[in-house]
Formats: sequence, C-alpha cells, structure tokens
Amino acid sequence: MFIDLPQVNLPRLVIVGGGFAGIELAKQVRNRFQVVMIDKNNFHTFQPLLYQVATAGMEPDSIVFPLRKLFKGVKHFHFRLAEAQEIIPTKNIIKTSIGEIEYDYLVIATGSTTSYFGMERLMANSMPMKSISEALDLRSCILQNFEKAINTPDLKEREALMNLVIVGGGPTGVELAGALGELKKHVLPNDYPELDFRRMQIHLIDSGERVLGSFEEKASLAAKKFLEELDVHVWLNMRVTDYDGLEVTTDSTEEFRAATLIWAAGVVGVRIQGIPDSAKTRGGRIRVDAFNQVVDTTNIFSLGDVAAMETDATPQAHPQVAQVAIQMATNLGKNLKRSATTREGWKPFQYKDKGSMATVGRNRAVVEASFMKTQGIFAWFVWMFIHLIALVGFRNRVVVFFNWLVNYINYDRGLRVIIRPFLPRKNS
Amino acid sequence: MFIDLPQVNLPRLVIVGGGFAGIELAKQVRNRFQVVMIDKNNFHTFQPLLYQVATAGMEPDSIVFPLRKLFKGVKHFHFRLAEAQEIIPTKNIIKTSIGEIEYDYLVIATGSTTSYFGMERLMANSMPMKSISEALDLRSCILQNFEKAINTPDLKEREALMNLVIVGGGPTGVELAGALGELKKHVLPNDYPELDFRRMQIHLIDSGERVLGSFEEKASLAAKKFLEELDVHVWLNMRVTDYDGLEVTTDSTEEFRAATLIWAAGVVGVRIQGIPDSAKTRGGRIRVDAFNQVVDTTNIFSLGDVAAMETDATPQAHPQVAQVAIQMATNLGKNLKRSATTREGWKPFQYKDKGSMATVGRNRAVVEASFMKTQGIFAWFVWMFIHLIALVGFRNRVVVFFNWLVNYINYDRGLRVIIRPFLPRKNS
Repeated sequence: MFIDLPQVNLPRLVIVGGGFAGIELAKQVRNRFQVVMIDKNNFHTFQPLLYQVATAGMEPDSIVFPLRKLFKGVKHFHFRLAEAQEIIPTKNIIKTSIGEIEYDYLVIATGSTTSYFGMERLMANSMPMKSISEALDLRSCILQNFEKAINTPDLKEREALMNLVIVGGGPTGVELAGALGELKKHVLPNDYPELDFRRMQIHLIDSGERVLGSFEEKASLAAKKFLEELDVHVWLNMRVTDYDGLEVTTDSTEEFRAATLIWAAGVVGVRIQGIPDSAKTRGGRIRVDAFNQVVDTTNIFSLGDVAAMETDATPQAHPQVAQVAIQMATNLGKNLKRSATTREGWKPFQYKDKGSMATVGRNRAVVEASFMKTQGIFAWFVWMFIHLIALVGFRNRVVVFFNWLVNYINYDRGLRVIIRPFLPRKNS
Repeated sequence: MFIDLPQVNLPRLVIVGGGFAGIELAKQVRNRFQVVMIDKNNFHTFQPLLYQVATAGMEPDSIVFPLRKLFKGVKHFHFRLAEAQEIIPTKNIIKTSIGEIEYDYLVIATGSTTSYFGMERLMANSMPMKSISEALDLRSCILQNFEKAINTPDLKEREALMNLVIVGGGPTGVELAGALGELKKHVLPNDYPELDFRRMQIHLIDSGERVLGSFEEKASLAAKKFLEELDVHVWLNMRVTDYDGLEVTTDSTEEFRAATLIWAAGVVGVRIQGIPDSAKTRGGRIRVDAFNQVVDTTNIFSLGDVAAMETDATPQAHPQVAQVAIQMATNLGKNLKRSATTREGWKPFQYKDKGSMATVGRNRAVVEASFMKTQGIFAWFVWMFIHLIALVGFRNRVVVFFNWLVNYINYDRGLRVIIRPFLPRKNS
C-alpha cells in the first residue's frame, strides 16, 4: 500500500533521516522538489550536547527540535513518522513501517549507531549514548546507582555502584568523562553526604596512544591534563574485551569493577536493506561517489555518517562528524538544484575541515580550527559560542544558555531527576 | 533488614511522600528531628502545571525538583528512593522496598492517584494525568495519533484519531481542555497542513451541573464561555460509563468516537497497608483528628490528599488541593516543634481558604480569592504570577517564565516531541 501524498508537478525527493544531513538537504532543495522526509523520531537531535543531558545539565527538550516545526509553512514538504525497511531500486520504491513510497530521488541519511564489534555480553551490559532516550537512560542509571549505593552495607559493592568506566577517548568519551568529573567534584557530594567520594573512580579507557586521536598531539595532551585535574583516570593503549555488568576485562592485566560502563568506542552505519552489495563497505557504511551517489544506483544518494566516500585523498572515507554531513548535504542540494536530470555543472564534494573542539568540564576545552588552535578557558568560550549558534531554535538557545549560566554560577546541575527509571538488562 | 541510618540524639520522623505536604513538613521540622523522607521518585512534582507538559508547552524538567537538592546541606535529613509497603504500628516500623525503617513519628503524605470507580475497561483504555510520566505519555499519545491520522485513508478513523474527550470538569479537566483548544487553534494546523481541523473535536464531559463545581457560579459560567470560545464542546449532567479505546459510552443517548480519552474525573487516596481499619474512610483516605493524627494510633500522622479530617464543619473532609496539604503540614510542623511528646500547646488545624483559580487558554482565567474575584485577562496574569512564585527553584521559574513568554508571543508550543513513544495498552 502506498502512503497518501499529494501528486504535484515536481520531482519527488525522499530523505530518510532528520539528522544534520537530512535537514540541511531539505532546506537546500525546498520548493524545487516535493520533499518527503521520514524518521523514526518526530524531532531532530543535536547530538553534540547529548552528554549534557546524560549528566543532568540539560533537559532533553532543549536539544531536540520538532521536524514538523522546522519546516512549518514549507510547501511540498511532507514529514512521516516511520521506519525505513527496504529499498526496491528497480521500482523506485522504499518500503516503510507505514507503507510504501515512490521516489524520483532517494537520499539515505540514516546516520550511525553504537557498535560493540560483536561483543554481545558487553553490549547487553553497557550503556550507549547515541540518542536522546539513551542519554536519559544513562542519567537515570547513574542516579539510580547512587541511590542503591547508599543502601548497600557491602563496601566493595558500594564502590562498584559509584564507579564509572567510559570506553572510547574520542570527543564523546572525553566530554562525557569531563562532565562526570564535574558531577563528582561539585554536585554528587552535596546530594549524597553519606557517601565517601574518595571511593568513587572515573576511568576513561582508550585503545590508542592518546585521547582525541584525531586532534593534534598538543590538544590531546591538554585534554588528558584537564581530565586528570578533574580526577578522571585515563588509560591508554588498552582495549576493553568484556564486561559482565560488574567486572571490566581488558587486554592488559588491569581490571576494573564498576556497575556502569559507558561505551563510546565505536559506531556502525545504519544501512537499509536493498542497497547493492557492491555499495556495502566497512563499518556498515554505504559507498558513494564524489557526488554522494550510491555506487551502482542511478538515483539514490547517501549523506553523513552512513555514507563512505573512499577517494585517493580519503581512503578511509571522511570522519563521521556533523560538519561532513552538513557540507555533503549542501553540496548535493546545490547539485540537485543545478539539474537533477542532466547533472550539468555538478561539482564533486570537497570537505573543508573547519576544525574540531571538545570541552572538558568547566573553563576547559580544546579548539583546533583553521583560524586558531587553543586550549583552556578561551577555547571553552569558543566552544560554548559555536554550540549555541549551531543549536536549532531560538527557544532552545536561550534555555541552553540560561542552564549553562546557572550551572556555571552555582557549580550545580539542576536536573538530577529520574523521570523514567532505567530498567537494567543486566544479569541477562 | 533495617536500612542504614545514622543514630543521633533526635527523635526520628519518617515522612512518606515528597509532595506539597511532605516537603513543607520537612522544612518546618528540620534540625529538630532526624527527618527520613521516602518517595518512589527522587523529585517533587509541581502538579498544577502537569497539563502544560502534556500539551507540549513545558519540559518535564522544569516542573520537577530533585528532593535531595531541595534539602541540600540540611543536617539530619535523609532521603531514600523507596516505596512504602507496610506499617507495623506495634513495632514502630515501616517496611519499604529497600528495607525496614524504625520511626518515632510517622507521617503519611502519599497523596492520591486516579480513580476509575472500578470501571476496568475504561481504566485500560484511557489516559490519566496525575504524574509526570503520565503527562509525558499523554503528550506522546496525542502526537502519535496525529501522525497516524495523516496516514489513515478512512475518514471516520482519521476523525477518531484527532478527537479528544476529557472527562471531569474540575480545574485539571478545564485547564487541559483549554490548552488542547489552543493547540487545535494555533499549533496543530501548522504541523499537519494535510489534515482538516474542522473535523477535530474536543469534548469536555462532566457529571455536574457546571464546570468548576467548587467555584462560584459566575466563575463556572465564565470558564464554560472561555472553553466554548476555544471550540471545546462542554457536556454537563453526563456520566461516561464505558470506553473501549474508540467508542465513548455515556448515561445519556450521546456517544462519542475518539482514540484518546483523558480521565480527570476522580482520585483515590494512596493508602499504605497497616493502617487501622477504623482509620479507613471513603475514597481511599485516612481518617485523622484535628491535629492530623491518624485515629487509633499514637504516633502516626497523615497530611494532604490522603488525609480526611471529617469534622462538623467539614463532614466530607477538606478538598484535595495543594493549599490544604501545605497548611496541614505547616500546622503539624509547628505542633511537633512545640512538643512532640507532651503535646503542650498543640493547635487544631484550621483551613484558611485562600481561593482557587483555573486558566483556560491564553488571556483567560478565573480567580476566586478572598481579596478578589475576577475572570478574564487580569485573572490570567494573577494565575501566572501565583504559579510562578509557587514553583520550586530559581532555574525552574526562569525557564517556565521564558517558555510562557515565547509561547505567548508566537502562539506556539515548541515541545511537540515524542521522546519516549507511548505504547498503548489498547485493545487489551
């Protein structure tokens, strides 16, 4: 059954995914195409601030934005809350959870999800942080463990309930570890005066030689120093190999005991069924050409984390970050507007690396941009400014800014509430 | 097993419930008692604004406040996340989900929950709105139904998905109906341009002769007029007798078809096992004397919605509103501070009715206070002012105020996000 959509005299572009790439592309091509966007959520998530939701510094509602509201009043834009199931390229049809949709052009911008590299027990027992629900679960899980710790007479068990292990020293792991360090230093001791916080340990484990491996060495060293100032123990050249919900096993002689392990060590593309086999590449990604067209297809494109443009300059494809997604979407949008049929004047994608940044608790960040490279408090202000302007929606910007201001002044994080308890899958 | 609590040279007061009564009492008696508060949530909920969370005008985090933070730095205050299970008055022990607690004085302030008066099918299919989770479920449910409506070719089914029936014309039902009327008028048509909103109906059904039955007639008439201006259909002298998830049956010849029925027509006290039979009274409440002491007990008190003080002046006990809960807690707190053992100088509870108010959409409210009785825009400003100052926490006040300001200026409600999908129990 086809889902009901108006028949108009415009080519139909179906976009799967309302992330950074999806919304940028829809903005680019609006009024020139009939745009149908499908997503399993009715909102866009500003993923760079998920870790603040997880650490009780931010309400979820401020870092998400309703997709319908984003395209309010745009003619020929249609949102559908649905999950993509299968593409049938020969028929130009995509099957979804609510019915089939015919397309003239299809864009797969489904992003990525957490990868555990096949370690099933680890997956069953650890906490991911790639969606707003997962961030809320993590917030609840950490708070619930502290409530449990207070009622545990067994000292070893109490320590395990307080301890946190973060695996993965990329920006997500580093920012999360920094925020947890702040929680330990300024917030949790007020909430739980009965607990001895000298016994709480935060470990950040990475398999590489340094944290923030994609940054320059100076930034990595600064980030490590900032983390250690917040009492986060950094372990490098170490792989976590198993986790039973309590004991963390590594490829070294080191072991850790913690009731919470947060896995930020890998992602995998969210691919849809029906992609040609020749377009399937490493990490669940989809092989695209220099115009983001999926190889061996004629009218299917892919953008963002799930797309892999493997060129001589980028044999490993581009990094899976928001900037790449947005720039790919802008380029494809411009090309489609030039001429979707003849492809006259189409320009290949060229990534302009505007730099990277990561924050580590209050007053500390590392920024690596074309115009400046800096670490410390000035970098922290740059980080805040860039994230505020990147956030979608005036209301969200004001509320986020106000939260930061209040947290900054009173060293607090006001949202330590377990609104939906996390029901552990542990010991399963 | 007893839960671990410090032994101090102060009498121990255990408070069950962190609602309006519980937090007011704990504030009153702090430093004079060892206060142990238990609640199944780690936060206080400002219930009067739940309907704004349900209608996407407010984030949940702004109307809740962490209980631990509320009593930060208070010596001899101990919070435990636990559910009360049974009182054993002969041993001065309360059993909870995390262990037993000995008390010198016990205060039951467990509040009330939705009552369906034994109508099981109605309960299984309708939406309550007494907790933050229920308000979030309602928000998700309404938005999900609109997403479904857009994909339904059957006109009758589409209408049913858009329709809303609210049962109960007290302040909760009236405020919710008003907010839904605003959604229909200003917000939803922008989000769903494909739907015909002339086909969406909002019905408010009450068994009494007028809405806001506890107010004076003039206020009831004004509220009804305000609702009708927002295109809410008000049905009086009508009882809903059944609901199968689609068809609403009443005691009249009228029938309604709606995929969502919100039940705000009754509450029942949340009683704990172990209360003497003689203290059990109508509506799941606990009979207390003029000092809020539970009858036939010596050191157990009850406050707020669950308490019933049946005196000659109040044969039906006091109304189940925040003001009664707070005033009872203040009076009991003062009495306990006078002398908990000899009860010298104890004063009986005297309710000072400061009035009631209800808002009906933007610019419209009814206020009935000792110092003024008014309906309309001025009442609406009074309503906002009173609710803002009553809200706990500076951060919450600012964020709530800012939300109201933004919603007021752009006729919008920004939080139309289904963060956790509501999984219907329907057709069960």
